[in-house]
Amino acid sequence: MGGDLAPQAPIAGALLALAELEAVHSITLVGRTDVVRAELDAQLNALPAGQGPSASALRDRITIVEAPEVIEMSDKPTAAVRGKPNSSMVVGLKLHASGAADAFVSAGNTGAQMAASVVLLKLHAGLTRPAIATVFPTARNPVVVLDAGANVDCSAEELVQFARLGSVYAEDILGRPDPAVGLLSIGEEPEKGNAAVKEAHKLLEQIDINFAGNVEGRDILAGGSSRGAVDVVVCDGFVGNVLLKFYESVPGMIFAMMTRAGVEQQLLAKTFKGFDYSDYGGAPLLGVKGVSIISHGSSSPRAIKNAIGVALRAVETKMVEHIGRRLEQPAVRDA
Amino acid sequence: MGGDLAPQAPIAGALLALAELEAVHSITLVGRTDVVRAELDAQLNALPAGQGPSASALRDRITIVEAPEVIEMSDKPTAAVRGKPNSSMVVGLKLHASGAADAFVSAGNTGAQMAASVVLLKLHAGLTRPAIATVFPTARNPVVVLDAGANVDCSAEELVQFARLGSVYAEDILGRPDPAVGLLSIGEEPEKGNAAVKEAHKLLEQIDINFAGNVEGRDILAGGSSRGAVDVVVCDGFVGNVLLKFYESVPGMIFAMMTRAGVEQQLLAKTFKGFDYSDYGGAPLLGVKGVSIISHGSSSPRAIKNAIGVALRAVETKMVEHIGRRLEQPAVRDA
Repeated sequence: MGGDLAPQAPIAGALLALAELEAVHSITLVGRTDVVRAELDAQLNALPAGQGPSASALRDRITIVEAPEVIEMSDKPTAAVRGKPNSSMVVGLKLHASGAADAFVSAGNTGAQMAASVVLLKLHAGLTRPAIATVFPTARNPVVVLDAGANVDCSAEELVQFARLGSVYAEDILGRPDPAVGLLSIGEEPEKGNAAVKEAHKLLEQIDINFAGNVEGRDILAGGSSRGAVDVVVCDGFVGNVLLKFYESVPGMIFAMMTRAGVEQQLLAKTFKGFDYSDYGGAPLLGVKGVSIISHGSSSPRAIKNAIGVALRAVETKMVEHIGRRLEQPAVRDA
Repeated sequence: MGGDLAPQAPIAGALLALAELEAVHSITLVGRTDVVRAELDAQLNALPAGQGPSASALRDRITIVEAPEVIEMSDKPTAAVRGKPNSSMVVGLKLHASGAADAFVSAGNTGAQMAASVVLLKLHAGLTRPAIATVFPTARNPVVVLDAGANVDCSAEELVQFARLGSVYAEDILGRPDPAVGLLSIGEEPEKGNAAVKEAHKLLEQIDINFAGNVEGRDILAGGSSRGAVDVVVCDGFVGNVLLKFYESVPGMIFAMMTRAGVEQQLLAKTFKGFDYSDYGGAPLLGVKGVSIISHGSSSPRAIKNAIGVALRAVETKMVEHIGRRLEQPAVRDA
């Protein structure tokens, strides 16, 4: 029931995922049963015949679970989680926490999803906060940027936690061996940055990750795995969220400029191939003992399908176990 | 003597400014006299005949002042200003402070320029820090973003100072009447943001500027003066510096993507017309009682020329006096 386009887009995205991702055994739709069932039936009836799996084959892989309450986008996170225990957010996460579902995906209230994920899935030992890991497309390889909005005022220790979480994520989900982790700052030198960043720099030099030092704004889009570039960029959630939303607004502006200059539609599409944000679909909330994927409130069906794909990959690669093991290892690098 | 390309680029930029900007009466080059004179003579000798003013006419508008010391890009700002009183930075700013020059432009060590500007030009009453105002090109009107790196850990009161400085700058230099000022945050609601931003939001509602509330990363490039867009974006220097450098790296990436897609060079150039950062050239250090223009260390001659143009416009519009008057006005809006 969450998100700006619910229940249409989440249901359409679920149908796309079932059609395209064979490894997705089944999907449980959580929400107001009557509303969800009506929308699902309408969409199944509208499926074109003869393309992909039949409507009835898809229907067999869908269950519906009742959740009469809805957390609105404007609700205060913690209060909403406590006050609406029968919301699709809380009921859905409980299904995952109990093992009835292997992962949870939502386009609803981000703050509420974070709060409910921490309460119901719990944090790994040693963590004080979860982080939202986003993937920035570049002309080369995509780069993981975290935190992208879960935590606004961060301590140095929390930045270090993000570095460890991001490192495992880049290795498991993006397949980067020994990923290079950069600390976002305003100069390469360790003494550049705000107070938390300067302190984090010292701590990061002591832990067992491939720490590449400070990176600046201009280094982010260099593209992971290229020379001198990093796979993971660590920052607080205020900076990360501003950057993410800023970057998301760039293609639209460039589109307008290219169109005005007279670039053909075909070349326009070719330029931005692989650059669509909905290719990435969902951002995992890292640090909780479960797979909780955060999608944009305005997610299209394709974005929802890709978010389900991100969830699938997290389950298949046992991302949560890896993170747990990594966090249990001694943090300090051998001298 | 400052910057990565000194003394070639600053001298070439000065010659361009003298040739193209008639209102620039004369330019004083500050540095190691022998080095500066040799480079200047070489550039004057290499000028193509018959185009623009003659070499001797240009030479008549140039003075050279000796400054034997050089502040390196790696020097610590405050120590450098104290320890190198005969550097081109300090000597040049003293010329401005004494009235022998109407403005100061440098591509040298930014931190040292800030520190020396505060010491030699002094801050306006009521200010605790200066701010670097940068101009972000957009598909519509450029937007002023400040602070872009002068202050990393900012209080709410300092963000309010930036808002007042940016408002006067947008009005005087960009010619926007009653410019709309947005506070950069991670949500539109006043209660979204980090601690300093939330407090600043409350303070900004009480002062005499056209405060448009919080803006998000995605709103910055909407382009000033368009519907719902702001002319000025206020943020701390950490966020502003990261955003500025990130944004500066975008055109290069898009160029590569467009080239790869097969877009013709001519259309490429047409797309990014007016989007070149060197069009803006220099960022004024706002809040000091003088015109101190900060240029990129890697500034091209064209960027230096445009920085001199920014200085000229600040002098012609009496920007510093306006800011002083504005800051003296009662800050609180009448109820």
